[in-house]
Amino acid sequence: MRRFVIGRGRNFLNRSHQQNLLSSSSSHCQSRFLSSTSVIDSPSSSSMAPTSSPAITVDSLNPKVLKCEYAVRGEIVSIAQRLQQELQTNPGSHSFDEILYCNIGNPQSLGQQPITFFREVLALCDHPSILDRSETQGLFSADSIERAWQILDQIPGRATGAYSHSQGIKGLRDTIAAGIEARDGFPADPNDIFLTDGASPAVHMMMQLLIRSENDGILCPIPQYPLYSASIALHGGTLVPYYLDEATGWGLETSEVKKQLEAAKAKGITVRALVVINPGNPTGQVLAEENQRAIVDFCKKEGLVLLADEVYQENVYVPEKKFHSFKKVSRSMGYGEKDISLVSFQSVSKGYYGECGKRGGYMEVTGFSAEVREQIYKVASVNLCSNISGQILASLVMSPPKVGDESYESYCAERDGILSSLARRAKANIGRCI
Amino acid sequence: MRRFVIGRGRNFLNRSHQQNLLSSSSSHCQSRFLSSTSVIDSPSSSSMAPTSSPAITVDSLNPKVLKCEYAVRGEIVSIAQRLQQELQTNPGSHSFDEILYCNIGNPQSLGQQPITFFREVLALCDHPSILDRSETQGLFSADSIERAWQILDQIPGRATGAYSHSQGIKGLRDTIAAGIEARDGFPADPNDIFLTDGASPAVHMMMQLLIRSENDGILCPIPQYPLYSASIALHGGTLVPYYLDEATGWGLETSEVKKQLEAAKAKGITVRALVVINPGNPTGQVLAEENQRAIVDFCKKEGLVLLADEVYQENVYVPEKKFHSFKKVSRSMGYGEKDISLVSFQSVSKGYYGECGKRGGYMEVTGFSAEVREQIYKVASVNLCSNISGQILASLVMSPPKVGDESYESYCAERDGILSSLARRAKANIGRCI
Repeated sequence: MRRFVIGRGRNFLNRSHQQNLLSSSSSHCQSRFLSSTSVIDSPSSSSMAPTSSPAITVDSLNPKVLKCEYAVRGEIVSIAQRLQQELQTNPGSHSFDEILYCNIGNPQSLGQQPITFFREVLALCDHPSILDRSETQGLFSADSIERAWQILDQIPGRATGAYSHSQGIKGLRDTIAAGIEARDGFPADPNDIFLTDGASPAVHMMMQLLIRSENDGILCPIPQYPLYSASIALHGGTLVPYYLDEATGWGLETSEVKKQLEAAKAKGITVRALVVINPGNPTGQVLAEENQRAIVDFCKKEGLVLLADEVYQENVYVPEKKFHSFKKVSRSMGYGEKDISLVSFQSVSKGYYGECGKRGGYMEVTGFSAEVREQIYKVASVNLCSNISGQILASLVMSPPKVGDESYESYCAERDGILSSLARRAKANIGRCI
Repeated sequence: MRRFVIGRGRNFLNRSHQQNLLSSSSSHCQSRFLSSTSVIDSPSSSSMAPTSSPAITVDSLNPKVLKCEYAVRGEIVSIAQRLQQELQTNPGSHSFDEILYCNIGNPQSLGQQPITFFREVLALCDHPSILDRSETQGLFSADSIERAWQILDQIPGRATGAYSHSQGIKGLRDTIAAGIEARDGFPADPNDIFLTDGASPAVHMMMQLLIRSENDGILCPIPQYPLYSASIALHGGTLVPYYLDEATGWGLETSEVKKQLEAAKAKGITVRALVVINPGNPTGQVLAEENQRAIVDFCKKEGLVLLADEVYQENVYVPEKKFHSFKKVSRSMGYGEKDISLVSFQSVSKGYYGECGKRGGYMEVTGFSAEVREQIYKVASVNLCSNISGQILASLVMSPPKVGDESYESYCAERDGILSSLARRAKANIGRCI
């Protein structure tokens, strides 16, 4: 099989990446209240001759949309799709027969198998009427059947096709909070969890809340995952970049962040939040706990919201490094709700699960006032709720099979197989880069 | 069982509804390009003494978020949740034991059962490894197994856990386009379909594209579904209301729309689109074809995008009325791609399916230039893709079992049972209102 691998065009990607930075949009918004009532009640010129409105052209679209760049799904993917179509309509027209899409982390598209237990539970929750059937015992593991019952019992009316609470099903949030507690050794509150369709909508939600105009800035690491530049552009804010240091393995120095913060302030930018991606994307670095403490102190001192992208928390491939959540770090420093505003993002798309298409994830929101929390809830509620399968999967990821469960051994074997394969490839990549 | 029904508080809801209109936000945005590079390259005051940034308070949030109201999940629901918690912690504390949430159409939370065939296919696609097992033949209908294979074969690598194309899996879009063609009798192009996590994100996407500032208006029916006022507020535009006429069964008169359009123009508002909800929400009216033709001509003449909310297309309860899609109507008038910009929204949450929690839906986008289409695609791509289960369900809804399929009879019985029950209750409600 002759394959063409999309995602190796580094120069092209780097160029797109530069563009992201250069085009980071900004618009000055002055809010003014214009009551619709005035429009409703006083049709002052209903006899006016109609003039044709301009047709919809690119130039008449929201300029924030135009400025937004998203290289991950940009020109390279479009070219790949064109090539694929050419291969279909005219086989042999290129020097390869198949296109592998490596432009984004999408492991199951490249053959990674899902964790069986997770899929068993999802299937049973999708079609609960087979739970009582004898054939089901032969097809599904005992603990997947038990877990499906547990989950269904947490859903009012066992209705997996009903809208849930806008933060997600309470019982699933209980499970996730318990999983966070077990991971961190500090309490987690299910009311702080907002289940979302993957991490991306959660990031957009926070940007929507925090960005008022081009004068609001968000500190983002460079290199970054282009979601951040895209989301900041869409919401009309300013990306304030800070540079990771390649020489120290893409380390994050608070002195660098501080320097960029001050530079932004000098330009009249109000910096509202600091994005930290840990473990790093695309760099893969894992921050040392000491470094994390410095970042927490920095955000506390500067009054910045700490937006902690922790979706790669299971993807640590070297034994000497360990993932610590920013919540754990801040709690271990003695900081509580009143000290630091912290949002942690998690997703079912990464880790060993790689369930990108299921669109599951959550954010844990701590250190905001009740009034601000209400606003976050309101924004979540406008989209009603995230998809229930993704919600269930997010709970499974944070509470996989345990010792003694029928699936435990096969689960461990599947998980470890995937992680060791990822680790092997991570090392191979490092070798190639050097 | 003593029940308290949420959603009967008409006065309260009406009041909230008024508030939606009154607070429909508007903000004047002047776009200015501020290159991030200037922030990157010239840290002009890195030695400046740090001053503490303001903490995150409600007053420092995005004012568009503050102005947005969403009554469907607003104060009534919060009160209900408080009451429910009180009932749990202190049974007997109220004169009722259970709370029924009727504040939003969420039929499965009130006991409506999902269509078995749909759930069979979803379960099999979630856990394809049981497709070859003999027990599966006894548990699942033959056509659900066949359909699951068909769908899996449309997904590269049969990977239901992989990100799909940002518009959705091509094979599912083919099925949906074929369903639209069968419904309308006019061609539908799978490349015009954007699969989304329910209709709400699709509506937000169009608002994000069309609204540049408070000077851009969107014509919306009153009464409306509050998603529209919420989305317009979040994107900083102006809601231009037009009133449905209760006397003619909530009819839509183009003269009224025209009057409001002119009034808005006189105030300096550029009206960009007309939202039509057909069948109506919350009014239930079904537009006559003649009326639809007048609306199409109006939008064509005025250069407005027609945003057709057609999610209730299966919910017509009187034999003398029939649903016609706006695309069918415009094509039957001889209008093609160059004549009218039209977006049709569909959802798996409504109809007889009522699969709200699955978050599936699509928009069919016609009559936009290739350049504008690219921008729509870009915005869709920033969220990667909609959830695959929702995508599959959207294809099933547009292509249910057919005569001769094993599930056909049971499918018809389930569908007709749900629709006749909904029709019975619609009539009972009309009786109560009179």
